[in-house]
Amino acid sequence: MIVSGLLASVGINFALCTIFFVLYSVLRKQPGNYKVYAPRLLAEGKAQRPSRFKLDRLLPTAGWLKSAWQPSEEHLLSYSGLDAVVFIRIILFSLKIFTVAGFIGIFILIPVNCSGNQLQDIDFENITNNSLELFSISNVKNGSDSLWIHLGAVYVLTIIACYLLYKEYKYISSKRIDYFCASELQPHQFTILVSNIPVPRGSTVGISVENFFTENHPATYLSKVVVHRKSKIWTLTTAAKDLYSMIINFRKVPTQPQFIRDGLLERENLINHREKKSDDPEANVRIDRSREEIRAAFVSFKSRYGAAIALHMLQANNPTQWRTEQAPEPQDVYWPFFSTTFMGRWISKLTVIGSCALVTILFLIPVFIVQGLTNLAQLEAYFPALKGILTMKGMDLRGFGFQIRSNLCLANMSIVSQVITGYLPNLILQLSLKIVPPIMKVISSAQGYISISEIERSACHKVVWFTVWNVFFANVLSASAFSLLFIFLEVKDIPSKLAVSVPAQASFFIAYVVTLGWTSTSSELFRVIPFIGSLLSKPFSKNSDDDVNVPSFPYHQDIPKILFFGLLGFTYFFLAPLIIPFLLGYFSLAYIIYRNQLLNVYAPKYESGGKFWPIVHDTTIFSLVLMQFIAFGIFTLKKLPYATTLTLPLPVLTLLFNEYCRKRFLPIFTAYSTETLLKKDREDQHHPELPHFLEQIHAAYQDPALVPANYSANQASHVEPLISTRKLEAKQRFNAA
Amino acid sequence: MIVSGLLASVGINFALCTIFFVLYSVLRKQPGNYKVYAPRLLAEGKAQRPSRFKLDRLLPTAGWLKSAWQPSEEHLLSYSGLDAVVFIRIILFSLKIFTVAGFIGIFILIPVNCSGNQLQDIDFENITNNSLELFSISNVKNGSDSLWIHLGAVYVLTIIACYLLYKEYKYISSKRIDYFCASELQPHQFTILVSNIPVPRGSTVGISVENFFTENHPATYLSKVVVHRKSKIWTLTTAAKDLYSMIINFRKVPTQPQFIRDGLLERENLINHREKKSDDPEANVRIDRSREEIRAAFVSFKSRYGAAIALHMLQANNPTQWRTEQAPEPQDVYWPFFSTTFMGRWISKLTVIGSCALVTILFLIPVFIVQGLTNLAQLEAYFPALKGILTMKGMDLRGFGFQIRSNLCLANMSIVSQVITGYLPNLILQLSLKIVPPIMKVISSAQGYISISEIERSACHKVVWFTVWNVFFANVLSASAFSLLFIFLEVKDIPSKLAVSVPAQASFFIAYVVTLGWTSTSSELFRVIPFIGSLLSKPFSKNSDDDVNVPSFPYHQDIPKILFFGLLGFTYFFLAPLIIPFLLGYFSLAYIIYRNQLLNVYAPKYESGGKFWPIVHDTTIFSLVLMQFIAFGIFTLKKLPYATTLTLPLPVLTLLFNEYCRKRFLPIFTAYSTETLLKKDREDQHHPELPHFLEQIHAAYQDPALVPANYSANQASHVEPLISTRKLEAKQRFNAA
Repeated sequence: MIVSGLLASVGINFALCTIFFVLYSVLRKQPGNYKVYAPRLLAEGKAQRPSRFKLDRLLPTAGWLKSAWQPSEEHLLSYSGLDAVVFIRIILFSLKIFTVAGFIGIFILIPVNCSGNQLQDIDFENITNNSLELFSISNVKNGSDSLWIHLGAVYVLTIIACYLLYKEYKYISSKRIDYFCASELQPHQFTILVSNIPVPRGSTVGISVENFFTENHPATYLSKVVVHRKSKIWTLTTAAKDLYSMIINFRKVPTQPQFIRDGLLERENLINHREKKSDDPEANVRIDRSREEIRAAFVSFKSRYGAAIALHMLQANNPTQWRTEQAPEPQDVYWPFFSTTFMGRWISKLTVIGSCALVTILFLIPVFIVQGLTNLAQLEAYFPALKGILTMKGMDLRGFGFQIRSNLCLANMSIVSQVITGYLPNLILQLSLKIVPPIMKVISSAQGYISISEIERSACHKVVWFTVWNVFFANVLSASAFSLLFIFLEVKDIPSKLAVSVPAQASFFIAYVVTLGWTSTSSELFRVIPFIGSLLSKPFSKNSDDDVNVPSFPYHQDIPKILFFGLLGFTYFFLAPLIIPFLLGYFSLAYIIYRNQLLNVYAPKYESGGKFWPIVHDTTIFSLVLMQFIAFGIFTLKKLPYATTLTLPLPVLTLLFNEYCRKRFLPIFTAYSTETLLKKDREDQHHPELPHFLEQIHAAYQDPALVPANYSANQASHVEPLISTRKLEAKQRFNAA
Repeated sequence: MIVSGLLASVGINFALCTIFFVLYSVLRKQPGNYKVYAPRLLAEGKAQRPSRFKLDRLLPTAGWLKSAWQPSEEHLLSYSGLDAVVFIRIILFSLKIFTVAGFIGIFILIPVNCSGNQLQDIDFENITNNSLELFSISNVKNGSDSLWIHLGAVYVLTIIACYLLYKEYKYISSKRIDYFCASELQPHQFTILVSNIPVPRGSTVGISVENFFTENHPATYLSKVVVHRKSKIWTLTTAAKDLYSMIINFRKVPTQPQFIRDGLLERENLINHREKKSDDPEANVRIDRSREEIRAAFVSFKSRYGAAIALHMLQANNPTQWRTEQAPEPQDVYWPFFSTTFMGRWISKLTVIGSCALVTILFLIPVFIVQGLTNLAQLEAYFPALKGILTMKGMDLRGFGFQIRSNLCLANMSIVSQVITGYLPNLILQLSLKIVPPIMKVISSAQGYISISEIERSACHKVVWFTVWNVFFANVLSASAFSLLFIFLEVKDIPSKLAVSVPAQASFFIAYVVTLGWTSTSSELFRVIPFIGSLLSKPFSKNSDDDVNVPSFPYHQDIPKILFFGLLGFTYFFLAPLIIPFLLGYFSLAYIIYRNQLLNVYAPKYESGGKFWPIVHDTTIFSLVLMQFIAFGIFTLKKLPYATTLTLPLPVLTLLFNEYCRKRFLPIFTAYSTETLLKKDREDQHHPELPHFLEQIHAAYQDPALVPANYSANQASHVEPLISTRKLEAKQRFNAA
């Protein structure tokens, strides 16, 4: 890519971002769009509709920027929970590290690169005509001493990154402990989930649990709730709920033909009949006892310490029985999937690994298409018919936005080819990347996790590695996308292969940052899909502020995105420092936009207490090591043997640092210490609500399939996704108590 | 190797074994050798010297075989502990699996191999003239259908091995729990070791521990013993003890020149003076308080369950502080090395990894020499002078005991070349292998383990992998011993490389089994070195039954040996089944000999409760997977693509089986369950000795450096290695209590 090409791409995307910003600042002020742009405020009754029309409403203003910028971290913590704070700190961490990297890159490395002339001298008169490669390490002479500066830069960045990582890990772990210490009485702190309960003949799960815990934890055992299978009852109730919400929607619209309404009313009667049946507690108990129990139970204890002891100690002589895990928050429980047995969960885990591999392989197809589009010459060879369209006016079209190795003197480019080579590949990538997080979430939910937070965390992991593998490696080693695996089987060639192909893709990834980073983040602000959805559904639904659907933040989708841009920053920092300013632009945008969205749009669905941070830490370490390996390859390639040797201690030290952090901080994210638990227990010992709370604790983990359904027209507005319903119920029961 | 060569080698070694057996059966009956052949019985007073001479004493008898065979497992368990039982069961397990393998190999695979004629037809008239390769898979025609039989054999053996492994793991874990349930009151069950204790300014370790545990474990905390540094006191006391034992030895021998005795007496006075000083408890306390405390302490609890809770729960918000681990048995504590800090232990662990790598590389030198000797032709090329010696009578000498690819019609072989090619290489290997376990133990002891049992377990691990790497892989891929690492960097070529080189080394490893297996195990019976040592020291020491040194069993040396023979059995089972009968011979020998030694010679130094078994399990799984990989390579090489594909599920299933076992059994080896602990605690609640026991518990973990030394002539017989002293002390204190 030449500089003017880059400028064009930046221009297009900058314009798009501006349009999104302007549109957002106007549309958000229209009361009809409150449901899209401020659902959380609306649900909490904070968004008051203006009493009368003002001209101000039609003008783009920047007031929202200020209100997104102002709130302190404490405010965000109390308003959106620790997970949101962690998310914002990921962006802040990236901003910090890449500000340093940017200084080094722009003021030290780029001048050094430009002064080299391995490729050719820079044309200072027509600066926009220079290839981007002239600003990269490729332009430094082989064996030149100025490569030592690059080595120094790698060292400096590694040290600063490790220092910041350590500080951040420490900060977030202390926040996690503080958060726990400041928390209210919460049922999940007193509860564990016990699975694979052995049931002797002639006994039931309930009796077995009761006996075991009164025997082994006599002082602390409180109560139990046996879990019920995702059964016919579950299916029935869910179907009924779905149908019911459909009916409500239809009822609201009076223009429906009479016959449809008649048919629906009939079904409604049927449901009402069923409801009456399920309202009968005796009937429930009968079904419950007969065959629906599964061998898992939520067991509650009188103190947090008691629950922790039962959680961390091996309970039975057969470690596959009486398996314990921390109970999720009541609204966080993922009821539909409850694999009973130890083996069942294990097998589903294995199946999931298989599915992940399958998705990864299937995804190579769009990557292949993208790579095909960036190599137009190749495409032309396969489809000669394209030649006419693509080479209008007889120009050489290879490489707008992508590798161009020779022939830098392009003058005019046809719009068709610009679109095809410059924008289309990224668009295809972007669209296919959009569908990956939901797919991974579905896969993770089949893995046997019992809470939505765990499912999202697992999906986050999967999306991170998927992106690194399928976007980074598949694009970098593009020539042989399908033979990727075989490349990795020849371990010793990896650094040199990466050293050749990573710098070659610098322009592609700069375009990627600008397109996928800038524009897609701005479209997050604009909320394209919900906005279109609300436009389409407007004629069919009554415009009520009550039936607003507050979404939860898709951490498993946005954390991997930020981490991937971080990976790009680390790997390209010393190869092509020109990428850093664009990354900084992205992170600044992300900072302000995500803050705005967290404050206005999303409501937390669960609180994992910052458990996303270890993923961030691990991925950053991976990025650092990858950078060091590429440096190793580059210095080999550039014939600087001493520098090559001197890069070797870097990955070793980085991995040792990682190992230390794992020992120092990771345990905090899996368990609270005796110290903290006892302190908290002692504080709450004389809490006036404690006795009532402990009495009610078993109600929190009632299977929703067996909670009597209660539908009536005036409650219609609460037809929400199940989880939100559960959350509200739980909140009502506990926060009010 | 041709059959006659094999028979010669077997003959030599069989003769050696017989000699050892005969010598042993005579020598063991001589009262002067009781110290060598029955030190344990002697120490326990069971070996009564015969009142008068009988002729029977000079005749070889086989009575000892019967007495080694007879005792039941229960007897062995109560006499030598669970570790000894586990050791014997390793041999039994190998016997079982290789009996099956032998049946399949001899009655199915060898006939199939012989009926092939890939190499040449078997000469049935002169059966001893056939090459051993004719009995191996190399003789089966490429693409022949009879290779399916080999695939079937691999499947059958894998299934049986997994079944037996599962049964064995289950049996040993239940034995471990039973052993714990049947155990006496033991101090280490009630104690944990806490390290990296944070000490506030102006406080001491003791006060800090006291405060922390009375705060966090008020109901169960009992007492503490702060650990003291390996300090000047330690060095002084050890030196004094060494000197003292020297003096005692000299004193016993009245023939020493007067001036030496005078000098020694002078030193003795000096020591006595020191002893008086260290006898003064006040002085001890003063030194102790001033600067010798380190930030670790043995903390005892009132119940086993209380100790387990403190052990398994995260204690502090900083996971690197208040680190807990199970206390070893008092006599098992490794005092000399007590790395204070978390970082200190971690760094020493890293250093150890480096040292292991160094030892492994250094050891390639003898392997190289061995390989040089087996390739005489090559040696001759380098040193033409050898030619005359080696080719006496103008014969082709390549390959007695080793690869011979052509020229099978050897007639006579000179003795020189037989010794050089047939016996010397194995002897060099054997001698160098002898020194590896002690080296690995020294390395492990620098790793920061706090007990001898952990050190030996870690050394066992190291020796296993060292043997696999340096004996198996270095010999198999002999051509490029130094480039071993690079071979493993090209992952995808490994199976085919192994498929070529493993079968080629079959004869070498048959010779290895016969030499290193048979003969060295018989020499274990004969105890060559202690025997020679006792012969040499006889003139200098008074022959007293009291100062007998009962050795402990060197698990870290003998377990890897057995496991390595198992690995050979698995890998060669379908390649060259001829190795199996020799292996069975080895295991039978080992069974009877080790039983005999465990009953007569070795006394248990510690009881790890069967913790060696997981190492055995993992190594066997590794052997199975290695066998399957070689099968994969072989079927590729033999051009049977369907069979190649069908071997792929095998390693996957084997590893899944391993994963299941890790989940099912491994936790039992790291912690006892709540169930068991509470049961044991409740049983002992009304134990009459419990109050006294708990009162005395802190005495068990007194630093020996600070226990007042007490030397006098009449106690001289107790100058034993420190550990044994400690054990006796501990025993006196507790078993008697």
